[in-house]
Amino acid sequence: MNVPPVCYSHKRNRITDSPISYFMKMALENPHLISLAAGLVDEGSLPAAAIARATDSILGNPATAKAALQYGTTQGNASLRDRVLRHICAMDGVTPEAINLSANDVVLTTGSQQLLYLVGEILLDPGDIVITEAPSYFVYHSLLQTMDVRVLTVPMDGEGMDLQALEERLHHLEKTGQLDRLKLIYTVDYFQNPTGLSLSTPRRQKLVELAKRYSTKHRILILEDAAYRELRFEGPDLPSIKRYDETNEFVISSYTFSKPCAPGLKIGYGLMPQELVGPIVDLKGSHDFGSSNFSQVIIERLMQTGEYHQHVEELAKTYRRKRDAMLAALQSNFSDWPEVRWTTPAGGLYVWLSFPESINTGPEGTLVGKGVEEGVLYVPGEFGHVAVEGNVPTNEARLSYGVVTVDRIPEAIRRLRRAADQLGLSPQPLESAHQPELVG
Amino acid sequence: MNVPPVCYSHKRNRITDSPISYFMKMALENPHLISLAAGLVDEGSLPAAAIARATDSILGNPATAKAALQYGTTQGNASLRDRVLRHICAMDGVTPEAINLSANDVVLTTGSQQLLYLVGEILLDPGDIVITEAPSYFVYHSLLQTMDVRVLTVPMDGEGMDLQALEERLHHLEKTGQLDRLKLIYTVDYFQNPTGLSLSTPRRQKLVELAKRYSTKHRILILEDAAYRELRFEGPDLPSIKRYDETNEFVISSYTFSKPCAPGLKIGYGLMPQELVGPIVDLKGSHDFGSSNFSQVIIERLMQTGEYHQHVEELAKTYRRKRDAMLAALQSNFSDWPEVRWTTPAGGLYVWLSFPESINTGPEGTLVGKGVEEGVLYVPGEFGHVAVEGNVPTNEARLSYGVVTVDRIPEAIRRLRRAADQLGLSPQPLESAHQPELVG
Repeated sequence: MNVPPVCYSHKRNRITDSPISYFMKMALENPHLISLAAGLVDEGSLPAAAIARATDSILGNPATAKAALQYGTTQGNASLRDRVLRHICAMDGVTPEAINLSANDVVLTTGSQQLLYLVGEILLDPGDIVITEAPSYFVYHSLLQTMDVRVLTVPMDGEGMDLQALEERLHHLEKTGQLDRLKLIYTVDYFQNPTGLSLSTPRRQKLVELAKRYSTKHRILILEDAAYRELRFEGPDLPSIKRYDETNEFVISSYTFSKPCAPGLKIGYGLMPQELVGPIVDLKGSHDFGSSNFSQVIIERLMQTGEYHQHVEELAKTYRRKRDAMLAALQSNFSDWPEVRWTTPAGGLYVWLSFPESINTGPEGTLVGKGVEEGVLYVPGEFGHVAVEGNVPTNEARLSYGVVTVDRIPEAIRRLRRAADQLGLSPQPLESAHQPELVG
Repeated sequence: MNVPPVCYSHKRNRITDSPISYFMKMALENPHLISLAAGLVDEGSLPAAAIARATDSILGNPATAKAALQYGTTQGNASLRDRVLRHICAMDGVTPEAINLSANDVVLTTGSQQLLYLVGEILLDPGDIVITEAPSYFVYHSLLQTMDVRVLTVPMDGEGMDLQALEERLHHLEKTGQLDRLKLIYTVDYFQNPTGLSLSTPRRQKLVELAKRYSTKHRILILEDAAYRELRFEGPDLPSIKRYDETNEFVISSYTFSKPCAPGLKIGYGLMPQELVGPIVDLKGSHDFGSSNFSQVIIERLMQTGEYHQHVEELAKTYRRKRDAMLAALQSNFSDWPEVRWTTPAGGLYVWLSFPESINTGPEGTLVGKGVEEGVLYVPGEFGHVAVEGNVPTNEARLSYGVVTVDRIPEAIRRLRRAADQLGLSPQPLESAHQPELVG
């Protein structure tokens, strides 16, 4: 019998396989690879002992055990919402009241990704416009594609999103009568995924001013993805963009415990204008009516005992060592090739590497395959760009020192250089493409 | 300065507050209430000790700790997918191969609710049709409203969904050229929320046959919500509807660990036709790229040690005691009033109570308020019905013995009778509307 086809929704027909799947498959099929592509976190520093203490304490007491294993609320654990609010405000050096925030303006989600999805669903209709940085977080671009949204981009420089270019964008949208479709400006403002760059303090304030100025008939909201903020390992913290939204009307800030604590718990949170909370929570009621309550109670406990803060401090040192190892390896392997450049992140998990334009780092190029042959994997920079507007650079790569152990980083970068040398475009290829592996 | 309004999506404008919010508010504002409305689970039997042993064992070993606290995959823990597949097939007395299933056809989600949402998103466009039972699970109705779907209903009798009525529905849709908009038939087939009724075995097979017969140009899928299946306390288990879908093409089965284990872990799962797995997992990649991995690993451990199965066995006994207490209390408080009838569930958490039509149980009626005065809360039956088609009965109530302790059940039902007596419509009102409370 011929079975008739499943008739999918229009949305399903816009959903594509994540580019990440390709790399997971590559890594599985090539176990000798050192992956600088995986978005995973450092494993040696995962706070297993602190979490074990928290679960023992929670489950050892009948009252807290019941509260943790029962359903929670859709908006999330009230005590944890209060703690994260005070935590973020303390980093910003303000009281919650000073920026018109309370724990009622906080929603806990299944990682910050779920918040990005919920915000998209309540705001975006097909054909609406979202502005992102170029490049930007590629999973967010997939999400926008699913929602049939038009993505416009703004270039970045060493201070993050180029606000001059943003203003020209806004002005052009206004002049051409398209401003009413612009709903959101999305920025990963701390140690951006994928570039490692941060938005400078003067631009933070200016970004809020721009959103306000162009909100003539409807509100243009800023979605601040601050996932990496706490992973700073040098220099002073920067105030959040939310810090400059003193009436709590223009900025939604998204944070996560996946990067600074443990992705296995899968809890993120958002601080947002009060009027968005109802729509977000009502929609989340249809999604799942609440993220893992047990995870929330564990994290609440870690914040209460102070172990969360101690952990973040230690973790930043771990990532600093890894970043240092990666920068040193890049320096020793690529310093003879001045057209190869890379960023120097002050936090987070990513270094952004630019080859000369003659080297194609993309999935259709030769470098990625030579990399696999040599035993190293990176994320092609193309994945961070959207193709709708003009040319997409094909000579960039995202290198992550998240999950790779520090002792493997020098070898990973040596392999990358050997792979690049095989294209015959480097100034002075290393003598042998198959030097013995020196470490781990 | 006047701040311009947020411009929401069309979807947001269809989202409504869950009716449950009203009852949570009532319970909070009236702490003396005994709630038979809450959808929470029995607290005394939550498996805190078993979960503590699992977390200690997982977190005490560096390798398993890393695996549990790191990111998992979007589709979910492979070992747990394999275990739930074998678990369900064992209940059905078949091998996975016999019904064309493998662990690749299983997706783990944030409770079963997330599966219902994802299935809706990949299949349903505005104006599409879903058939449900009348009454049905009201949170699912909210979800369908969010998706702007047309809900058609089929009545139930003691054997569950009336398939004669379903066939007439299907025939009518075919005759009127609307069959191409019918995407899903949704049924809660074990101890249904809200009625406690189950679909009989002959109807299970017949339901699959009907879906196949009317799948002339596109596939009409069955969404089997089996959330309560494992909570059976008497009689033999019924084969799943999936059991009769031997080619794995027509039935998506949805299960959860919230009811049989612990809602705080918030893990559910679906078994589905292979071709749906890619679309569901790709979409889940945009939602959250994976539910709490830690929760998944904990449950996997409980299934591995056998503690999960032992727990379910004990839990069924607990709910049986509560069901017995509720039926006995209904009998002793309402046996003098023959027009008042109730179901006798063989499992699950719900008894469905029908008053004579003169008594309005709805949120606009007087009984709910009198109930609050007397100190008892129930879910009005209206919430389980959709208003689009004909008259909605206003004389029904869902009584849950989920979270209420067994010793409070008799008093809860006495309060309900006292509340009903105050409407002056019962055959022989009890003498005093304010008898002293006899139990805890």
